[in-house]
Amino acid sequence: MRVFESPQELQQYITEEKRKGKTVGFVPTMGFLHEGHLSLLRAVRPDVDILVMSIFVNPLQFAPSEDLKTYPRDIAKDQAMVEKEGVDILFLPSDESMYPSGYSTYVGEIELSQRWCGKSRPGHFRGVTTVVLKLFNIVQPDISVFGEKDYQQAKVIAKMASDLNLPVTIRTCPIVREPDGLAMSSRNSYLTSEQRQAALALTNSLDYAINEFRKGVRQGNYLIQAMCLYIQTQDNVKLDYVACVDKDTLSPKEHVDVGDRLLVAAYVGETRLIDNKPLTLE
Amino acid sequence: MRVFESPQELQQYITEEKRKGKTVGFVPTMGFLHEGHLSLLRAVRPDVDILVMSIFVNPLQFAPSEDLKTYPRDIAKDQAMVEKEGVDILFLPSDESMYPSGYSTYVGEIELSQRWCGKSRPGHFRGVTTVVLKLFNIVQPDISVFGEKDYQQAKVIAKMASDLNLPVTIRTCPIVREPDGLAMSSRNSYLTSEQRQAALALTNSLDYAINEFRKGVRQGNYLIQAMCLYIQTQDNVKLDYVACVDKDTLSPKEHVDVGDRLLVAAYVGETRLIDNKPLTLE
Repeated sequence: MRVFESPQELQQYITEEKRKGKTVGFVPTMGFLHEGHLSLLRAVRPDVDILVMSIFVNPLQFAPSEDLKTYPRDIAKDQAMVEKEGVDILFLPSDESMYPSGYSTYVGEIELSQRWCGKSRPGHFRGVTTVVLKLFNIVQPDISVFGEKDYQQAKVIAKMASDLNLPVTIRTCPIVREPDGLAMSSRNSYLTSEQRQAALALTNSLDYAINEFRKGVRQGNYLIQAMCLYIQTQDNVKLDYVACVDKDTLSPKEHVDVGDRLLVAAYVGETRLIDNKPLTLE
Repeated sequence: MRVFESPQELQQYITEEKRKGKTVGFVPTMGFLHEGHLSLLRAVRPDVDILVMSIFVNPLQFAPSEDLKTYPRDIAKDQAMVEKEGVDILFLPSDESMYPSGYSTYVGEIELSQRWCGKSRPGHFRGVTTVVLKLFNIVQPDISVFGEKDYQQAKVIAKMASDLNLPVTIRTCPIVREPDGLAMSSRNSYLTSEQRQAALALTNSLDYAINEFRKGVRQGNYLIQAMCLYIQTQDNVKLDYVACVDKDTLSPKEHVDVGDRLLVAAYVGETRLIDNKPLTLE
């Protein structure tokens, strides 16, 4: 496995390899890797010649009040994990190499990204689309893979890729969960053991609503209310939002059907967690 | 010469050619071609395997009050002209293929593009950067060439390319002028013969200021005032702005030197024209 820190050197290397006909797969991450990240690597490894993972805690997608400084980092452990997955190139750019002094270009998706997490975290998705576009231009992937835990993010990136005619195929992979159902997230490391237990309220509230759906409920508002009530009964959990949306447009659904998506975001202590599930009949 | 109308088909074709090791040069235009455009083709033709020109009157860079509907078009004549210059691919996308219903992603450079033409034409440069990025993603050029008549545009595009790590080299070419000095522009076709004569005020005002510089004047404000006065004495010419700027940052210069740039924009009748020249000693 080769490690690159310079965007220019990696870009030049990839450009030369692509000229020889090589294909490139890419998994961008913020590191502190877990099985969720590894599942993304496994989903693309067989289909490409060169597999690239980036680890970059992107300052542009954090608001000043958020957890940029405390975001968990363990590059040595990450490096050992991805080497086992057959990653060819690990890209570890510095903040300065990605956003040099005088940086002034930003990319924004202005429909999908206005809702839900976009409302709770102003500027967040602009930071995400900008860094992902930069990483795509450096790595020049044929295929890039994103996890469905960040469901809205995956949709926003796919919309950007389509709108901007990016020559890349966007894939998504299902959420990987802990045995008790908690969606894997690097931010779970913030939780005390008590909070870790309370955090189950997110996945359990989704299951509760899906169960109501399976019993025949088809009113989106009823499912939302059920999830809100469920979460509000949990100590140490503060609801951010609950939504019942069309799986592609992310717009709210009044009358729901199989395939529509439930989204939830909540604070457990200081830690903001998100989760989502599709409505299914079994 | 092959003609493509579909972004997807052109992108796929280029992707395959690049995989074989071919290099691509690209000249994006709005058509109604003149010697200025042809000079851009000649500047890159010897250095690439595949030379692509696009003709697309980009609605996104026109304000509602501007001349989108009347912008001059003559595709048949353009096609004959570029065939002679050895263009391999002419790309003629439709509005609908570039901005399908629900389009929602925009790219903005927020420093260089705020000044001068950016102030006179709000949203203009966002339209330019968005369409150029889309065209770059479709055509995947190794080299792209822009004319210095649109001096600020060329700087904004180069800044976007640098900020977003685009794998493309941006070249610029000097303004091509009519024998009497008028900068070539597709919009010159709007001018009556009287206006055509009046339009010389732009290049003449630049020459007047450069002459003052050569006589020893080094105060930016003095040069600006001289140009303003020159233009204000001309019938049928209404000044938009005059600037004396650093050639890279486009910020105003108080004390000027060789290499700094004079910019001018003015209306001749309804037609908005721009011009610029560097300060030189001979």
